[in-house]
Amino acid sequence: MSADVVFTPAGLGPGDVAGRTVFVIDILRATTTMCAALHHGARAVIPVPSVEEALRLADTLGKDEVLLAGERNAVRIEGFHLGNSPREMTPEAVGGRLLVMTTTNGTRALLAAQGAAAVYVAAAANLSAAAARLRESLERGDDVLVLCAGREGQFALDDAYCAGRLLREATRARRLDVPLSDAALASLDLVRRYRDDWALPLGLSQGGRDLARLGMADDLADAGRLDAYPVLAQFHERRVTALKRAA
Amino acid sequence: MSADVVFTPAGLGPGDVAGRTVFVIDILRATTTMCAALHHGARAVIPVPSVEEALRLADTLGKDEVLLAGERNAVRIEGFHLGNSPREMTPEAVGGRLLVMTTTNGTRALLAAQGAAAVYVAAAANLSAAAARLRESLERGDDVLVLCAGREGQFALDDAYCAGRLLREATRARRLDVPLSDAALASLDLVRRYRDDWALPLGLSQGGRDLARLGMADDLADAGRLDAYPVLAQFHERRVTALKRAA
Repeated sequence: MSADVVFTPAGLGPGDVAGRTVFVIDILRATTTMCAALHHGARAVIPVPSVEEALRLADTLGKDEVLLAGERNAVRIEGFHLGNSPREMTPEAVGGRLLVMTTTNGTRALLAAQGAAAVYVAAAANLSAAAARLRESLERGDDVLVLCAGREGQFALDDAYCAGRLLREATRARRLDVPLSDAALASLDLVRRYRDDWALPLGLSQGGRDLARLGMADDLADAGRLDAYPVLAQFHERRVTALKRAA
Repeated sequence: MSADVVFTPAGLGPGDVAGRTVFVIDILRATTTMCAALHHGARAVIPVPSVEEALRLADTLGKDEVLLAGERNAVRIEGFHLGNSPREMTPEAVGGRLLVMTTTNGTRALLAAQGAAAVYVAAAANLSAAAARLRESLERGDDVLVLCAGREGQFALDDAYCAGRLLREATRARRLDVPLSDAALASLDLVRRYRDDWALPLGLSQGGRDLARLGMADDLADAGRLDAYPVLAQFHERRVTALKRAA
């Protein structure tokens, strides 16, 4: 049993995830948006690395079957039905639909986690559900990895704080004595620093400042709403689905 | 003018350091040991990536000319004169000598910084000297990168805390208003968390715990002595030399 945090998937190889239970975080905004879509009735979200692959998959699955979602430089991709905003994922827009999604950092992190024993998607939006599963994993003796998407291969404050919140939530209830890596310790230190205030680390982060500058401050507020979209979201056989509703 | 921190050289390309002033930190123990050696009169330290290259270089330079130093798994390399302990670098051992050094993470970080506008070596041991130079760089308008060696491509708490101490020391005197990256903010958050107590983050880190387990707790204490070896150490033309004594 151990709990590790990685601040970016850069340099992560298949050997680093094999046998572990991985929780992928891209709170601004991919994993928040996935939770919103699944909570509001989307059947699944299929993350793909490129626009080309999204279009190809839409052709294969049938264009009427899928909604294309995603961003480049935070802006909706031309010709796509949806961007990467959780507020776009209304029941009317996504209920019963299959989403094919490509984002800058989040989908890359999910794809880097392929080959793990199990992969879940986490954000503030589903923190309690994800933390409950993380705690179960530790209690079973699993090795857990919290994988932050980061930003273009670098540390992102928003994801690192969310990783700390997830670990704290998972370990404090029953005082689990888990061996923690340096990055896990540092993420918990960020929680001590910012306490329960999502707005501060999200707003200070480069990702958050960019969204505010682009007029997307509402997305920032949405991403910091605890358990707003309370789904346990698993990435399995190339698609993210809701296993159950936590509330 | 900007100040960035990178927690590991993994994924860092030549384009990421070009034009920037880089400060390399591997406080446990390579950069501490280099400061000790230079402070005690070594002419230079030449970092090399492998044992083979250390031996080859010793042949080229003349075996009587150089001292071989370095570790693998924290232990002195067989046949080498010195390990990677700052306490080995006494004036008697290293005065007037040229050291060829190979360590697991520190030399890798230095070599990743090649191609930068200027590269310095930093640790608690020379914090004031390094911070003074960092402040000068920012005042000139340079882009500064604090490059942590980390641990096998991952975040290391000891280096990250030292990065925060270096940034705080460099910016607080004149209230420089520097744009900070997410990693720079997080390293400053670690300083708020651990305050001025080097022993706590060094002792909690995996690197520190490993040294203690191997009976090298004295090295841990030595690495936390502020300005113990107060040299301004520059990496230039493949060798690290002392530019001047700060005290």
